[in-house]
Amino acid sequence: MSRVAIIMGSISDYEVMRNAEEVLKRFQIDFETDVVSAHRTPQKMFQFAKSAEEKGFKVIIAAAGGAAHLPGMVASISNLPVIGVPIKGKTMDGLDSLLSIVQMPKGIPVATVAINGAANAAVLATQILALSDDELKEKIKDYKMQLEKDVDNMSKKLKEESHANI
Amino acid sequence: MSRVAIIMGSISDYEVMRNAEEVLKRFQIDFETDVVSAHRTPQKMFQFAKSAEEKGFKVIIAAAGGAAHLPGMVASISNLPVIGVPIKGKTMDGLDSLLSIVQMPKGIPVATVAINGAANAAVLATQILALSDDELKEKIKDYKMQLEKDVDNMSKKLKEESHANI
Amino acid sequence: MSRVAIIMGSISDYEVMRNAEEVLKRFQIDFETDVVSAHRTPQKMFQFAKSAEEKGFKVIIAAAGGAAHLPGMVASISNLPVIGVPIKGKTMDGLDSLLSIVQMPKGIPVATVAINGAANAAVLATQILALSDDELKEKIKDYKMQLEKDVDNMSKKLKEESHANI
Amino acid sequence: MSRVAIIMGSISDYEVMRNAEEVLKRFQIDFETDVVSAHRTPQKMFQFAKSAEEKGFKVIIAAAGGAAHLPGMVASISNLPVIGVPIKGKTMDGLDSLLSIVQMPKGIPVATVAINGAANAAVLATQILALSDDELKEKIKDYKMQLEKDVDNMSKKLKEESHANI
Amino acid sequence: MSRVAIIMGSISDYEVMRNAEEVLKRFQIDFETDVVSAHRTPQKMFQFAKSAEEKGFKVIIAAAGGAAHLPGMVASISNLPVIGVPIKGKTMDGLDSLLSIVQMPKGIPVATVAINGAANAAVLATQILALSDDELKEKIKDYKMQLEKDVDNMSKKLKEESHANI
Amino acid sequence: MSRVAIIMGSISDYEVMRNAEEVLKRFQIDFETDVVSAHRTPQKMFQFAKSAEEKGFKVIIAAAGGAAHLPGMVASISNLPVIGVPIKGKTMDGLDSLLSIVQMPKGIPVATVAINGAANAAVLATQILALSDDELKEKIKDYKMQLEKDVDNMSKKLKEESHANI
Amino acid sequence: MSRVAIIMGSISDYEVMRNAEEVLKRFQIDFETDVVSAHRTPQKMFQFAKSAEEKGFKVIIAAAGGAAHLPGMVASISNLPVIGVPIKGKTMDGLDSLLSIVQMPKGIPVATVAINGAANAAVLATQILALSDDELKEKIKDYKMQLEKDVDNMSKKLKEESHANI
Amino acid sequence: MSRVAIIMGSISDYEVMRNAEEVLKRFQIDFETDVVSAHRTPQKMFQFAKSAEEKGFKVIIAAAGGAAHLPGMVASISNLPVIGVPIKGKTMDGLDSLLSIVQMPKGIPVATVAINGAANAAVLATQILALSDDELKEKIKDYKMQLEKDVDNMSKKLKEESHANI
Repeated sequence: MSRVAIIMGSISDYEVMRNAEEVLKRFQIDFETDVVSAHRTPQKMFQFAKSAEEKGFKVIIAAAGGAAHLPGMVASISNLPVIGVPIKGKTMDGLDSLLSIVQMPKGIPVATVAINGAANAAVLATQILALSDDELKEKIKDYKMQLEKDVDNMSKKLKEESHANI
Repeated sequence: MSRVAIIMGSISDYEVMRNAEEVLKRFQIDFETDVVSAHRTPQKMFQFAKSAEEKGFKVIIAAAGGAAHLPGMVASISNLPVIGVPIKGKTMDGLDSLLSIVQMPKGIPVATVAINGAANAAVLATQILALSDDELKEKIKDYKMQLEKDVDNMSKKLKEESHANI
Repeated sequence: MSRVAIIMGSISDYEVMRNAEEVLKRFQIDFETDVVSAHRTPQKMFQFAKSAEEKGFKVIIAAAGGAAHLPGMVASISNLPVIGVPIKGKTMDGLDSLLSIVQMPKGIPVATVAINGAANAAVLATQILALSDDELKEKIKDYKMQLEKDVDNMSKKLKEESHANI
Repeated sequence: MSRVAIIMGSISDYEVMRNAEEVLKRFQIDFETDVVSAHRTPQKMFQFAKSAEEKGFKVIIAAAGGAAHLPGMVASISNLPVIGVPIKGKTMDGLDSLLSIVQMPKGIPVATVAINGAANAAVLATQILALSDDELKEKIKDYKMQLEKDVDNMSKKLKEESHANI
Repeated sequence: MSRVAIIMGSISDYEVMRNAEEVLKRFQIDFETDVVSAHRTPQKMFQFAKSAEEKGFKVIIAAAGGAAHLPGMVASISNLPVIGVPIKGKTMDGLDSLLSIVQMPKGIPVATVAINGAANAAVLATQILALSDDELKEKIKDYKMQLEKDVDNMSKKLKEESHANI
Repeated sequence: MSRVAIIMGSISDYEVMRNAEEVLKRFQIDFETDVVSAHRTPQKMFQFAKSAEEKGFKVIIAAAGGAAHLPGMVASISNLPVIGVPIKGKTMDGLDSLLSIVQMPKGIPVATVAINGAANAAVLATQILALSDDELKEKIKDYKMQLEKDVDNMSKKLKEESHANI
Repeated sequence: MSRVAIIMGSISDYEVMRNAEEVLKRFQIDFETDVVSAHRTPQKMFQFAKSAEEKGFKVIIAAAGGAAHLPGMVASISNLPVIGVPIKGKTMDGLDSLLSIVQMPKGIPVATVAINGAANAAVLATQILALSDDELKEKIKDYKMQLEKDVDNMSKKLKEESHANI
Repeated sequence: MSRVAIIMGSISDYEVMRNAEEVLKRFQIDFETDVVSAHRTPQKMFQFAKSAEEKGFKVIIAAAGGAAHLPGMVASISNLPVIGVPIKGKTMDGLDSLLSIVQMPKGIPVATVAINGAANAAVLATQILALSDDELKEKIKDYKMQLEKDVDNMSKKLKEESHANI
């Protein structure tokens, strides 16, 4: 049973959203991915949101660009936490998506991450699931230690390249 | 039978949207007004949009602020022309509402007017209805002549006040 | 007799605006296309706007970039519904065009669509014409069903590619 | 034992953040509130973030304005989900706070809500806690039904006031 | 015979534009002021622009807010230099007016001054007229010396108030 | 004797500014071009501005990017009309240059044209010079007629390409 | 002998800039305050910047609004570190001042602080002076401890007011 | 002993930050460069900031993109002057980094330079160090003279290329 649903308004968003999948695979969290468009398939969107909880999903990650209504609409119908990923489109540098997703009215939050921040949507979903899953808690600790090691490696590499040594 | 539906996400939008009502009354176009929230009443929104055409509405005016999803969602469900009015909220000076309404994806347009442009939404609805209503066509001509007269009056008033005469 | 006029401020806008033409052809709506510049050919613009209604046009689609005055000026002269398409230029990411078109004063609306949203301008024109054309109504239903099918196809394609299956 | 921590960069943020408290009280979720400044009390911030999990907190709500570093820094130190509330300051209309909170780098998400969206931060925290608390799940259902009723009441009130009836 | 025409889209702009009149009176330059709306009185605007040169005007100052088309349209019809004053409206903080006026296409410039910069429009008009009017040249020198004296006075006043002296 | 000075903050601006030169050559207006940096050569800038009038210049065109101080500083020192050209840099899409140039304080205007609007700066300079040069007046009429012809040619070309004919 | 010069473009900036004075008084650093306008008193500005170092100033704090050229011009002439304070004006929410001050070209930095951040300009000046003044170093430590205490006091006050205790 | 520390949030920032190194080498100022991430290595960041002064650093240059917390956090912990370099990321054109760095609260300044302004961060650091290092003062004079010569060279080159000579 998948704990996380990843939905996006168009298959063109998948180039960004595969980063969410990669993070969830790293944490061995089952997920399902689908294209669900608030505007082109409102019925599918409704049914998805309505049935998400009983299908066993715990967290929904929804990505959309432009007038990005998918995360907010899913949040209005489902009671699950919804994480919104603003996708940068061809104009307005992602500001339109960001504001369309984050500026939700009182009562219906969307947990918004950075523009094109698919990986972080998955990390956030993992943190939420980890609240009742001690194994995941350990994996998050490892993940953060890995982030530290990445910086250590960058640090070594930079010291080789830096003008300070020349 | 009302030809225009005016819906808004919250009663607080009515302060702006009564300007749409005033214009429609001037043109003697029947309308109905309701609060329909995409986020708080998604079912009502769906049913409204689904049945709008068969109820006899020809044009829908939808107003919303912030992450303004109401116009776009109604446009995704109904095949009627939808006019969107971005409402200025307490932050972001209306830019969030404007982008949330206007930046719709291919296939599902919203005819967007100015931020807080309720009166113009009604004028646009009237222009659309006038395409098959010659009486309305005449009224629009009168309306535009009135706009000219308003400027003439301003012009006279300005000439009295202006420093040029002092 | 063409029901829709498509005008644009420069031939460089045609790369975007041919999407409007494609949509109108799909709906078998006759249209005429021309370059009309508010700034370089104000006379032509005036004459176009003045005579558009008697030439039989029902809807005008006007595209412009930068200080985009064409849609608003045509709307001030003609009583037909005018749909404005903001064209993204080399600077300001289309925000200048969008604000120049959408922020019209009381009395003279422009039905604004997304930045570079030429296809949607044509869909909106079709919705307006469909109010008195039952055949078009059916075609819009088909069009929306096609949008749904497009998403279904994306959905299948995504499920093949997704990491969830790997 | 409190499940939610509410921290803010300055007591001046409390005018906004008391809305988070009100929502949590409504859901009968214990919480603790404190002023923790990333910039003026970096030690306190570190200790707070470091010990939050073992103190029993499940979710952290962090609010800040301007160069709003509190949510992101707490998220970098704690493994708990962190919800960020951008506070509108005297300049830049909250855009600075929003971007400082939402644009986090890969690995360290902050679940960002609307500018001044304190109430929604609390609703989101509740949704997260409800994943392992069936009583809360019911309360969220009630809350959403209440939102619907609020709109129904607005709807009735609007119909009394509307010009449509005059 | 007036050398400067001051036109504005609405009488509500006069609160700002009277600053232009005050500056021109100081320089003893005759001017005429009128309300001319590109959108509500396109005919009047055309006739004004068409006849401005033969009426003896040398410079046109045009002010408008929102989708501010007046300066650009007058510049497209008249060959005189046109100075544009963006008026700050109720939304978007004047950015819409500024971009609508300044972002003119190749061939049709508008000499744009600051948002609400009516006084500077008049100073600029004076500098242009002074190119063939030696008396005005002297007056501009005096004006700039007055600006210096104003700063000297501020300087004295500040030194009295400043904490440096306490 | 050159009537127009074209100065720019860096030689990298010349790619844009050569468009100003081309327009002036078309109008057979003598000009001089130089690199003058407000920040790197403040003395040269001062001397340039101080002596511009007595050298016989009538109009100064000043281009700069980023924190674009050159046009405003030259305007503060010289009494000649100064036309400012905001140059788009590598960040902020030209908004920084535009605001740095246009938002001048009371008393010291800069006649600002579009971002990268070098050609229009030259047209504006020509319009100013034409006020006392009847030959130039005729050339501007010709220029505007040429603009019209350009649109006519575009119009023909578009009608060949348009889908309307297919 | 004063170590810090505080200059501002207009006396209206003093309402903000007195906060810089207060901080410097707290640190017992002598300073001088003056109105120096890059645009209205370019000569005074030049002389000020030219002689600042030999007068014994170590750091210059320069505040300006709108097209804020004062900090950058002083930085181009003097070799001292220049701290720029963007002042929020009546339009554009301070963004114009910020970009005009911070976006300086290579070679001529301005150390920019927050919009209206006068107090921080003084703290930064103090930090710079403290590099060769051990007494100031101690005072900065005290100042930061005071900031911590302020937060402690806020913390106590908040705990009394908070809903958590009700 | 290095007087300047250059830190950056990621090695990808080094492409920009090597410009700071080049400037410091030109001035023969010893420096150290490292990757320190506020978010991925908060401990390292704390220790770095805590020990920077006793290690002998006089000035810290900190670069970061997006939700750029590194400069502000280091400034909150260390009492040394901190210079912040906003790095332009893949979205928002550097505006997010700029606002995250510059909009610091009262008490904790960051001396912010232009977006990607690494070279200027180094020049500013040099100016600060020069306050107690007469040799550096001379080198800055030379540097500014070199800037002037660069413009002279540009000036010559431009005069060869310019249309004015053709």
